[in-house]
Amino acid sequence: MTSPIVAVVGGGQLARMMAPAATALGVTLRVLVESEQAAAALPAHQTVVGLPTDPQAVAALISGQPPAVVTWEHEHIPAQVFDTCESHGIPARPGLAALRHAQDKIVMRQAMERLGAPNPAWSTVSDQAAVDAFLAEHGGTAVVKTATGGYDGRGVRVIQSSKEVVDWVADAQQGTGPHLLIEAAVPFTRELAAVVARRPSGDMVAYPVVESRQVEGMCAEVIAPAPDMDPRRQQDVQDLAMSIAESLDVTGVLAVELFEVDGAVVVNELAMRPHNSGHWTIDGAVTSQFEQHIRAVLDLPLGATAAHAPVSVMANVVGGSRQNLADALADVHDPGAKIHLYAKGVRPRRKVGHVTVTGHDVADVHARAVAAARIVADGGAQ
Amino acid sequence: MTSPIVAVVGGGQLARMMAPAATALGVTLRVLVESEQAAAALPAHQTVVGLPTDPQAVAALISGQPPAVVTWEHEHIPAQVFDTCESHGIPARPGLAALRHAQDKIVMRQAMERLGAPNPAWSTVSDQAAVDAFLAEHGGTAVVKTATGGYDGRGVRVIQSSKEVVDWVADAQQGTGPHLLIEAAVPFTRELAAVVARRPSGDMVAYPVVESRQVEGMCAEVIAPAPDMDPRRQQDVQDLAMSIAESLDVTGVLAVELFEVDGAVVVNELAMRPHNSGHWTIDGAVTSQFEQHIRAVLDLPLGATAAHAPVSVMANVVGGSRQNLADALADVHDPGAKIHLYAKGVRPRRKVGHVTVTGHDVADVHARAVAAARIVADGGAQ
Repeated sequence: MTSPIVAVVGGGQLARMMAPAATALGVTLRVLVESEQAAAALPAHQTVVGLPTDPQAVAALISGQPPAVVTWEHEHIPAQVFDTCESHGIPARPGLAALRHAQDKIVMRQAMERLGAPNPAWSTVSDQAAVDAFLAEHGGTAVVKTATGGYDGRGVRVIQSSKEVVDWVADAQQGTGPHLLIEAAVPFTRELAAVVARRPSGDMVAYPVVESRQVEGMCAEVIAPAPDMDPRRQQDVQDLAMSIAESLDVTGVLAVELFEVDGAVVVNELAMRPHNSGHWTIDGAVTSQFEQHIRAVLDLPLGATAAHAPVSVMANVVGGSRQNLADALADVHDPGAKIHLYAKGVRPRRKVGHVTVTGHDVADVHARAVAAARIVADGGAQ
Repeated sequence: MTSPIVAVVGGGQLARMMAPAATALGVTLRVLVESEQAAAALPAHQTVVGLPTDPQAVAALISGQPPAVVTWEHEHIPAQVFDTCESHGIPARPGLAALRHAQDKIVMRQAMERLGAPNPAWSTVSDQAAVDAFLAEHGGTAVVKTATGGYDGRGVRVIQSSKEVVDWVADAQQGTGPHLLIEAAVPFTRELAAVVARRPSGDMVAYPVVESRQVEGMCAEVIAPAPDMDPRRQQDVQDLAMSIAESLDVTGVLAVELFEVDGAVVVNELAMRPHNSGHWTIDGAVTSQFEQHIRAVLDLPLGATAAHAPVSVMANVVGGSRQNLADALADVHDPGAKIHLYAKGVRPRRKVGHVTVTGHDVADVHARAVAAARIVADGGAQ
C-alpha cells in the first residue's frame, strides 16, 4: 500500500490532533515541527525539525517521497513556502490568496465588505488622531487590532482613548510593528463559530454552529450546537460561512468566528485550519474536523458532520496549578469525560489540553466538562 | 509534562489502533514492531524493531525511560518476557497466569470447567482412536483445534473422520506440533462476542454484546448491539464475561467469543487484548476499546462504554482485487462510512482495514458498511 503523505507546517496541538485522523485513513502525516519537544513531534508519522522561515527546512519537508499536499496548522506561513511548493508541483492548501484573509485582518475586513458579509464599523489606523476620531464617532469604546500576528487575545486591545495604543501606533508608523485597524465595539450577546470544510472540487460541508465562550480573549468553552438557536438561523450562519469559503477559494477547514447581535451576526475572525471551536467534533461528531481537513486538502469526499448527541461541550484545559498533567488521568472519574492532553509544558494562559462531554442536557453536560477540565488543570482545587 | 509510557509487544493493526487513543491521553506508545514496515511502525510514538523471542529486543523495549506498563497486542508472548519485566519491576498486563488462557485452548477449557462457564463437550486428543471415539459419541461431526498458535480460522478443522487430522495427530504425538483438543460441533444460531475491560484494582466495564458474523472462520462483520437480544440476556452475557475476567485476573481488555444455542451461550474463545469484535467502538462508542485497554493496563479510571447510536456495524476489509487501498479513499462516497486502513500489504484472507457505520436501522447500516468495505477491497466490483 502506497500511503499518500500530507505535509503539515507547524507542530502544535492542531497538527498533533491530525495524527489520529491520518492514522485511521492510512495517510502518512509528515510534520514540520519547531522542535523535537513540539506537541506534534511524537504522534506525527514523520517529522522535520525547523521553521517555515527556513528554506532548508521547507525543502526537507517536501523531499524524499513527495507529499500529495502541503497544509498548515497556523497562519504564519511566509509567501516563499508557497513558491517552493509551486515550483515542485505540490499543491499548497489553503493557497496563499485564501490564507491572506486569515493572516491579515485588514485584508479580511476588505474582503468581507466586498462580499457583503456583516462587518462591524471599522477603519484602518495610521495615526492617533484617526483613533480618537473613530472613538468619538462610535460611542467612546473601540477595539484596536494588529492586522497580523495576533492570537488568543494577543494583538487586541479594547480602548477608550488613543493613549492606550500609543506604542502600537508608533511601531506601525515606524514600520517596526504590524499595521493596525480599529473596530466598533460590538454589543454582542454571545460569540458563535461556524466550522465548514471545502475541497478543491468545490464540495462543502458545515458543522452545527456552536457557541464559544471566551475568557480574557481566549476560547474557554464551546457548546455544540449553540443553545436556543432555531434551525433557520443555524442554516443562515452555515450558509454565510460556506459563502465565505467559496468566495475566498478556501480549501480545508474554515472557522468563522462571529458575534451575535440582536439576532443577527457580525464576522469577527477567520481561521483556515482546524480550530478550537471544532475540537468537540473529535468525540462529538461522525467526522472530526481533523479528518475533515485531511480529506478536504487531499480532495477526498467529505465526511458527515452530524453530532453523536443532542449536546457536546468542550472545555479547554489552560495552564493552572497542576504541573504534570499526566497525573490528571487518575483524578478524573467521570467516565464520559473525554480527556485530550497536548504534551506541552504547563504555563499560565497556555492551552495544554481539552475535555469534551456529550449528552442530552446542556446544563449537566456543561458542568461536567468544566469540572473535568478544572480537575485536569488544577487537581480539583477551587 | 512527563508522559507515562505504555510499551506494546507486537506491531500489527491492534497496536496501530492504540496510537490514536494514546495520543489523545498524552500517553507515549512505545511498540516492539516486527519490522519497519509493520502496521504500527509509523503511528507508534516510539518503536523498537525486533521479536518478543529476542531478549535484546525486549531489553530495548524497557530500557531508557522505563515504561509504566508492558502489554501485548497478541498472545504469542514467551514466558521469559514476563520474567524480564518482573526483574525490572515493570508490570506486565495481562499477566502470564491470565494470558495462558488465551494462549492455550486446553488451559482455557479446563478453566471454564472449573468456573462453571458453559463449555461445549470437549476432550484432549492423544491419538486417532480418541478422535473417532469422540466423533461416535457426539453425532459424527466435531471440531479439532490446535491448543496453541491458531487464529482467524487457522488451527481449526471441522471433521467427520479422524483421517482429516492424521497430520496434526502425528505432529502432536511426535512433539513437532501443538497439543490438540476436540470439541462437539455446536449447533449455534449465531456467534456473539462480549468485550469487557478490567483494571488491576478490580473495576470493570462491559461493552454491549455484539453479533459476530464469520466467513471461513474469520470475523467478517460485527453488529452492535447483537440484534433481537433482550436486555436481561445482554446483561447475563456481560456478567459471564466479567466473571471470567475476574476469575482469571485479567487486566486490560478481554474479548469472550461465544456461540448462541437455543437462547443460551457456549464459550468459544478468549482474547486478552483489543479484539476485532470491538473495532466498532472507535467510531460507535464513547470510549474505544483501544483507549479502554490503555486505561485498564495503566490502572486508570475506565471510560463509558455507551454506544453513540442505536446500531453500529463494522465490516472488515479483507484483501481483494484492489492493490493500493489508499485509492479507495476517493471511491467511498458514503459520508458516514468511517474507513480504517492498516497500511499493510494486500493479500487474500488478510485483514487490511475495516469500515464502521452507525445509525438507526440495522438493515440499512449493515448494507452501507458492507458496501463500503467491498468498495475499499475490490473497487466496487461485485
